[in-house]
Amino acid sequence: VNLFLLETAALRDGCASLEGAQARHAIDVLRVSPGQEIRVGVVDGPTGTARVTRIDAGRVELHCTLGAVPPAPDVDLLLALPRPKVLRRLWAQLAALGVGRIILTNAARVERNFFDTHVLDPAFYRPLLIEGLQQAQDTHVPRVSIHRRFRPLVEDDLGTLSQVETRLVAHPGEDASPIVGAWPRGAARSLLAVGPEGGWDDFELRLLGERGFRRVSLGGRTLRTDTACVALLAALRAGRDAPA
Amino acid sequence: VNLFLLETAALRDGCASLEGAQARHAIDVLRVSPGQEIRVGVVDGPTGTARVTRIDAGRVELHCTLGAVPPAPDVDLLLALPRPKVLRRLWAQLAALGVGRIILTNAARVERNFFDTHVLDPAFYRPLLIEGLQQAQDTHVPRVSIHRRFRPLVEDDLGTLSQVETRLVAHPGEDASPIVGAWPRGAARSLLAVGPEGGWDDFELRLLGERGFRRVSLGGRTLRTDTACVALLAALRAGRDAPA
Repeated sequence: VNLFLLETAALRDGCASLEGAQARHAIDVLRVSPGQEIRVGVVDGPTGTARVTRIDAGRVELHCTLGAVPPAPDVDLLLALPRPKVLRRLWAQLAALGVGRIILTNAARVERNFFDTHVLDPAFYRPLLIEGLQQAQDTHVPRVSIHRRFRPLVEDDLGTLSQVETRLVAHPGEDASPIVGAWPRGAARSLLAVGPEGGWDDFELRLLGERGFRRVSLGGRTLRTDTACVALLAALRAGRDAPA
Repeated sequence: VNLFLLETAALRDGCASLEGAQARHAIDVLRVSPGQEIRVGVVDGPTGTARVTRIDAGRVELHCTLGAVPPAPDVDLLLALPRPKVLRRLWAQLAALGVGRIILTNAARVERNFFDTHVLDPAFYRPLLIEGLQQAQDTHVPRVSIHRRFRPLVEDDLGTLSQVETRLVAHPGEDASPIVGAWPRGAARSLLAVGPEGGWDDFELRLLGERGFRRVSLGGRTLRTDTACVALLAALRAGRDAPA
């Protein structure tokens, strides 16, 4: 934990307290003591510092001094629903990398039973998103939505869900551009589409193409979805931030 | 599995057979039948295709036609030993991304008990490396070495272990260059150093600096070691492969 993320409701007149897992981490791992300062943030709000005022009965009481709200993530992700085991590994990593919106969709090569899992329950994934934000010192919790029909999502809803200038779809092949350079320096937000393990099918690629998604690729290697998402998001952003 | 990787010894006159987990995957998941062709590779050797000649008693017999050896990975990784849970997740991902050599080292902020784990046993990690290669359709098994003393490793052994032109150390901060552009197009092999969760200490950074490691960064976010390794390797290679 590099920053303790507090729920808005937990903060009153600059005072808050850590409980449960956060308090245990502060007490047992960081070994905080009264008077010490730690990094804190408020969900979807500012970051700042907090002075430990009291430790009592497994609670760590804080007095917070908050500053600026970190910049909102500039990338959204359209992701064909991966198998539960893979998605479980992804939640914290996506939050740590910084994703504004995670749009999970069905696709031809997504197995139907992937939708029937507790890994898609906010009670399961929200703590993992918080964990990723606490690692990366961010406060912006990714918005998550789940869509069982690909075509109406792409045709009707995507423009509202993710308002971006640049739409990219990860798909290897001759007509794909390298991902570095695909999101030009100075460009506004982007939306990256990542397909299922077996890839997008022809219909899906055509529909995405008609809706302005340009094909990008990391190269010839086929990666597991979790590795691919991390690799693509990192390369995309590193390319945008690279010197001209 | 996008390619079945065979041990050299298993191949005789172009014939081989899949057994155990490989055979079960071929039979139960891919539902192969005699006459069908599948992608195969030989450990550290060529890739090619194999025709299924017979399926019997849980074995899949193959006749292989092998072609070229894929290019060897052009990046080595010097990694401060992560906690066992994190390293377990990394093995397959590193092999899938393509790493020539994985050099695991002690560092000031590595906990000593991280060395006492079955995750460092070749019997544990080799199947995970093979899994990553089968995913990425590569045959080059990363060479792994484990070093309990940082200074002699860097001063005496690193030049022999990893013969590269470009040495980079991931470390955020003002004096770090963006990782895209740090490994120029057309340059030969590179070695990337990734520190422990708490970062390299000043001594380690100075020693690496004296030995020609330039500082690079992915930006301001602090990532967990497994996410950081995947993100850094992907951005590094994507940057090298980007159009000028």
